[in-house]
Amino acid sequence: MNVDGKPTRSIWLEPDGWSVGVIDQTALPHRFATARLSTLDEAAHAIRAMLIRGAPLIGATAAYGICLALRADASDAALDRAYATLIATRPTAINLRWALDEMTAAVRNRPRTERIAAAYRRAGEICEQDVAINTAIGRSGLPLIEAIARRKKAGERVNVLTHCNAGWLAAVDVGTATAPIYLAHDNGIAVHVFADETRPRNQGASLTAWELGQHGVPHTVIADNTGGHLMQHGLVDIVIVGTDRVAANGDVCNKIGTYLKALAARDNKLPFYVALPSPTIDFTVANGIAEIPIEERGADEVATMTGRAADGRIETVRVVPEHTPVANYAFDVTPARLVTGLITERGVIAASRAALAGAFPDRAGAAQ
Amino acid sequence: MNVDGKPTRSIWLEPDGWSVGVIDQTALPHRFATARLSTLDEAAHAIRAMLIRGAPLIGATAAYGICLALRADASDAALDRAYATLIATRPTAINLRWALDEMTAAVRNRPRTERIAAAYRRAGEICEQDVAINTAIGRSGLPLIEAIARRKKAGERVNVLTHCNAGWLAAVDVGTATAPIYLAHDNGIAVHVFADETRPRNQGASLTAWELGQHGVPHTVIADNTGGHLMQHGLVDIVIVGTDRVAANGDVCNKIGTYLKALAARDNKLPFYVALPSPTIDFTVANGIAEIPIEERGADEVATMTGRAADGRIETVRVVPEHTPVANYAFDVTPARLVTGLITERGVIAASRAALAGAFPDRAGAAQ
Repeated sequence: MNVDGKPTRSIWLEPDGWSVGVIDQTALPHRFATARLSTLDEAAHAIRAMLIRGAPLIGATAAYGICLALRADASDAALDRAYATLIATRPTAINLRWALDEMTAAVRNRPRTERIAAAYRRAGEICEQDVAINTAIGRSGLPLIEAIARRKKAGERVNVLTHCNAGWLAAVDVGTATAPIYLAHDNGIAVHVFADETRPRNQGASLTAWELGQHGVPHTVIADNTGGHLMQHGLVDIVIVGTDRVAANGDVCNKIGTYLKALAARDNKLPFYVALPSPTIDFTVANGIAEIPIEERGADEVATMTGRAADGRIETVRVVPEHTPVANYAFDVTPARLVTGLITERGVIAASRAALAGAFPDRAGAAQ
Repeated sequence: MNVDGKPTRSIWLEPDGWSVGVIDQTALPHRFATARLSTLDEAAHAIRAMLIRGAPLIGATAAYGICLALRADASDAALDRAYATLIATRPTAINLRWALDEMTAAVRNRPRTERIAAAYRRAGEICEQDVAINTAIGRSGLPLIEAIARRKKAGERVNVLTHCNAGWLAAVDVGTATAPIYLAHDNGIAVHVFADETRPRNQGASLTAWELGQHGVPHTVIADNTGGHLMQHGLVDIVIVGTDRVAANGDVCNKIGTYLKALAARDNKLPFYVALPSPTIDFTVANGIAEIPIEERGADEVATMTGRAADGRIETVRVVPEHTPVANYAFDVTPARLVTGLITERGVIAASRAALAGAFPDRAGAAQ
């Protein structure tokens, strides 16, 4: 999507043809910075330190991490080490494992001399496939927004609430939850997005607000606490979020706090949709709430806040008393019963075992 | 409760016998500062700028604001002007109007020469009554915590989740939601509190964490998004929050985000209690969701965050992109159907019209 009016992706191959460029998302929204990844360790660090984040983009970056590892050493042992290093960076998003398995399958049975080229080819395909999938998600979800728009009076906007960032910054381009939103906006539908701030890392306030602003989509940042009140008072028409992993039963793991918004949508009889590319489905997990590992991150993400001081410096300030214990769960799981539907590249389907297996029999079968 | 081991209140009469001391809560948790209020305007500013906040403390401060106004001018016109100035400071907490009506009743029919003394007497009573009420709330709520403690195995703690600050910093002393917690802790029950950060003003992270820490109550600060996940995984036993106004039908207005925690408690079959002193009941409001005015505050509270920088300076940093629209609703309303019970100075009662009118017939009748 657009940055300063110029089409931009979140990850790209540098002009040298082998090193990998990414947007350093930790500098947003105050500064647009990029980082160049030239080794496995740099790729792993970019994922771990969240220079990049978002399930699809984690997968894409891990894919290129394999390429960078193989450039240094194309042996089976090096491939195994790279897999082990990258899989350990983040525990929750399943796209990471999916991408690493795809990369392994693409290179494992090849002679070493062909591995590097094969790896770059597959990593490139993974990126292009992500864009194609997200574009298809946009087409799948567009009718949901169009239907609401048809009920609106002249001058009224379709109000979408989203949580965290499931935009193009979380993917290679287009985004997942944002795909129908961008498409509706580009098609001339009056869409307005309530972007949850998304504590503790503020991906809504910093990333979603930034990318919507860059693309010209009207939006309002709200504290995470606000969604229920807005829904009670008719200010939200539809909730669309992304996901880091969908279980075989339709349970949806996403940024902590998503579950609370699903509850509020249900209580106010509003549709709650989850947009996802099929690599986010984990058919090996039967029950999302019981089985999906929830990453616990450092206390500083809750105890401190980083932003721009009045003089322009980027400053981190502490917002809890010294020595206060803090817990930082990064994700929660929304039970399938609260999900109105899953917006996928193959259409909108129910959040159920039968619907998932029916729409993606290839992936469901492979997990048996 | 204790600050640095010393019993402390949130508001007091200074040794001069007429000016009013308060804790400047905007400096917490990084600095313990006090402010001296010597005029009506200073009292109004303290409420408006949230040097003090919390429904009961707003009422107590407004009461002393009337005293300070009468010291300057004890006429009927000055009394009316003081009422008008103070009632306009904050729209949601009903204790403000209650305290102003109490003060007016105490002085209106007296000769001017007696008004100042009568006002200080009534303001002092309002403060002492708040402490007595909150102590009674603690006794009312204690059995709820004791019952959970009895079900625990040796070494297990009772986990209470609370939102915002309904502690002694929100009242004159003891607090409302914290009253049963402090009493249980002081009685030797192992209690642990999950304190929601409570964006946008962070009263949980800055005030609740600070006062629980000062009094030695074990606690953990969490992002507002976290409560649902904790409840899903059996990490919360009971939710206790305060309130700024309870409608005659039992609807509960409290800090924005309370409604989301009530929904999560209901979804996980956990008890959700609201602690309140009877002056917080507004029998003139039949339906809380439809009628209670919800204060909208400035965008900066969401767009920025204030805390302590590494070098010790208090710094405000911007966390959203420049020019990003922001909405800041300060409260929401939890429908009575989600409230397990109201913890009052007259015991635990149902959140219903009949129970409220039955427990407080004096106040219910006066509102007819």
